[in-house]
Amino acid sequence: MADTVGDHDCEYLATLDLDGTVEFTESRREQYGGDASPHEPVTPDAVVEAASTADVSAVLAGANERGIPVTPRSGGSGLEGNAVPVAGGIVLDTTRIDHVDAQPDDLQVRVGPGVVYDDLNERVAQYGLRFAPGISSGDVAMVGGMIANNASGFNAVRYGETGDHVRRLEVVLPDGEVIECGQEVVKSSSGYNLRDLIVGSEGTLGVVTEATLELVGIPEHKRAALVTFPTERDASSAVSEIIRFGVRPGAIEFVDAPSVELLNAYSGLGLPEKPTLLLELHGNNSGIEEDVEFVESVCADNRMERWETADESEMDEIWQARRDALPAARAYREGWEPLVIGDVVVPISKYPDIVETVSRVADELDILTTCVGHAGDGNLHFTPLGDPQNEAHVAAANELNERVVKAAIDMGGTATGEHGVGIGKRKFMDREHGAGSVRVMQQIKDAIDPNGIMNPGKVLPDVES
Amino acid sequence: MADTVGDHDCEYLATLDLDGTVEFTESRREQYGGDASPHEPVTPDAVVEAASTADVSAVLAGANERGIPVTPRSGGSGLEGNAVPVAGGIVLDTTRIDHVDAQPDDLQVRVGPGVVYDDLNERVAQYGLRFAPGISSGDVAMVGGMIANNASGFNAVRYGETGDHVRRLEVVLPDGEVIECGQEVVKSSSGYNLRDLIVGSEGTLGVVTEATLELVGIPEHKRAALVTFPTERDASSAVSEIIRFGVRPGAIEFVDAPSVELLNAYSGLGLPEKPTLLLELHGNNSGIEEDVEFVESVCADNRMERWETADESEMDEIWQARRDALPAARAYREGWEPLVIGDVVVPISKYPDIVETVSRVADELDILTTCVGHAGDGNLHFTPLGDPQNEAHVAAANELNERVVKAAIDMGGTATGEHGVGIGKRKFMDREHGAGSVRVMQQIKDAIDPNGIMNPGKVLPDVES
Repeated sequence: MADTVGDHDCEYLATLDLDGTVEFTESRREQYGGDASPHEPVTPDAVVEAASTADVSAVLAGANERGIPVTPRSGGSGLEGNAVPVAGGIVLDTTRIDHVDAQPDDLQVRVGPGVVYDDLNERVAQYGLRFAPGISSGDVAMVGGMIANNASGFNAVRYGETGDHVRRLEVVLPDGEVIECGQEVVKSSSGYNLRDLIVGSEGTLGVVTEATLELVGIPEHKRAALVTFPTERDASSAVSEIIRFGVRPGAIEFVDAPSVELLNAYSGLGLPEKPTLLLELHGNNSGIEEDVEFVESVCADNRMERWETADESEMDEIWQARRDALPAARAYREGWEPLVIGDVVVPISKYPDIVETVSRVADELDILTTCVGHAGDGNLHFTPLGDPQNEAHVAAANELNERVVKAAIDMGGTATGEHGVGIGKRKFMDREHGAGSVRVMQQIKDAIDPNGIMNPGKVLPDVES
Repeated sequence: MADTVGDHDCEYLATLDLDGTVEFTESRREQYGGDASPHEPVTPDAVVEAASTADVSAVLAGANERGIPVTPRSGGSGLEGNAVPVAGGIVLDTTRIDHVDAQPDDLQVRVGPGVVYDDLNERVAQYGLRFAPGISSGDVAMVGGMIANNASGFNAVRYGETGDHVRRLEVVLPDGEVIECGQEVVKSSSGYNLRDLIVGSEGTLGVVTEATLELVGIPEHKRAALVTFPTERDASSAVSEIIRFGVRPGAIEFVDAPSVELLNAYSGLGLPEKPTLLLELHGNNSGIEEDVEFVESVCADNRMERWETADESEMDEIWQARRDALPAARAYREGWEPLVIGDVVVPISKYPDIVETVSRVADELDILTTCVGHAGDGNLHFTPLGDPQNEAHVAAANELNERVVKAAIDMGGTATGEHGVGIGKRKFMDREHGAGSVRVMQQIKDAIDPNGIMNPGKVLPDVES
């Protein structure tokens, strides 16, 4: 894996009889160098826009024979450099594999990796169903990337991660063989769970060319509220208590005061600039009112200052603003950018502690840092902002990330809740999983991808040779 | 793996300084030869009752050096020969590792593999919590075996399988190294999912010595009903529709008319000897009544003959009877036994078809066969009864199993929903998963257990050499 860009002779691609297309021009290749993260783009040697499983198989088989790195990609909305082709070679774009074939009677849908999350939900809404994990970038994120990174978002607190909704995968192995992982049923005890091994493996073991996803009913009733608190600790403690008592909101988002300021500036919302919870309760029956009363009482116990119920159109506006948290951060100051996009998860009882840790460390390092998070999951996104050309800013952001991730792991948590390991979290793998577990992961990688062609430089730390 | 019993020199065990004990006497060894399945017992060469993670590590390290097979075991209630030491060697009993350490604020509990399912739920009930998959043999099944087989039962339709509730595992690898798999949080995108690879691997990759399990709230409200139908197809169609409309009962059990007869004979229940659904609706608020009304209307649409609500004590009696389905089958006729314990799952829309398939094939083969099942999951247990000494009976039972399993797989289903592959389902692995997937499973097995000591003869079909 000592590859550098330009090393790889990808001419074999031109000889393949593909349904899709191969691109060698520099302008096209440059478009495939980066993702939505702060990680440096790298221009690949070639790009394939695959249009079928057969395309993916042919491209991989040829690359495997020649030892050419392949970086699979769908929406390109990753936040940890997951689809950056750091070793050059081929970027394998699967966006054209975008079929949608619903089986509403079995509450499931067969989809290609190139289907956009929001589009999928529009397509299955006619059956009263939806693919439920929620994702902030649902207008661009595609199913392939969501599976590769075990992505989730707003609604995971009630409905779970992407992986919780995957029944079956069609996967092309590095040598081009096509296999099936899992079955189109709700449970099985048959054999090793290859499906959940592929989920979250970030294209380092193979390429998903079709998935059968479980769908859930669109809730009949929704109630929404916007709740403000005097301090971040009060807001985060309220979340911790709500979850502890077994209530599962459809969504429960934490937004710190600096984030509310950014959102107001970006979207003109005029929200009180206080630590805030955005809440949605889902239910299929009238009992939902009891849940709302319970949640309001817990918030009151945690010194809430204001409880404002929102109707559906108000709530749509607020959710759109929450979705815009990252663009709002980018717009904060000319030349400034999010320098790191944090993504830790801690046990729910520790949520107030991790929120406080971010705040304390950011103060110590004197770096402006905003926090939002899928609080019901214990998931916190912290975003240090600064000038990417300013070495002191970058150093402070990296140190903040390092200290917060280590604190989260020490609390029993994880370095990444939904963005994946990609490039930026590899250095925490040993600390989080232990060297023994990481060694087993590497053994699995070596067994399935012996030539190491699949998305090199991601997930697993470099092996000492 | 050409081992036969008695081949293995297990004397090294006597030299280990264990917290637990080693047993070499024949009478003790014989107690560890079988499980609750119809599979032939095999007496191991030695038995270790491990009392700590360190014990498990020392036993495995020594066995690995010497190439001695090790069959891990907890409750021994498996129904597919999963814990039968077919290659002899050591049975590693983990029942003495039975600590229970709850963290109610994080809705979780750390447990040893030797904790009995019902005992665990008694211990955590004080917090208003429970470990939810439900299992018919909850009075004997232990957490270790439930994880090894991804077991489930009555309540999986609402709460999921064992694997859905496992957050973290401590696992001893075949060479004795202790690793951690997963984190004590509700979601993560960090690295390969080793946890769900271990779940359901039936002790063929390592031994679980501790698990952190997610707990759920004990439902505040329950409603139960017993519903009878004129035909099996009506009952199973009702289930299919209830699930399709998005209602998730706490439990929904299908019991065919012959099974009701057996249960009446065994437990003196006096139920109408008709195809029956046992229903439990769970909820945390008053809206549960709407669900009850909806379910009743679906049953009415499917020609139900009787809807009888049951209070808690009546329902306890009925559930106990349902739990006794297997003993009731055993008691049916002197000298007769269940010859196969079927465990297929199909897509829910196909549930009426698989019920009909069993009935038709059993008629053709002229073998008495009873059916019960966790119908909401699409899971059906079919049990051909006969004299195990009667070759015609045994041949008919095996043919029934073969034909029903193949039909289920052809419907997109699985050969085993909750009992595991064990010995009896290995022959269906290629058909269910495809040869390519099974080869990847074998590669993983070879990478993690290169000497092939862990529970040989289970899960994966024999490799042609």
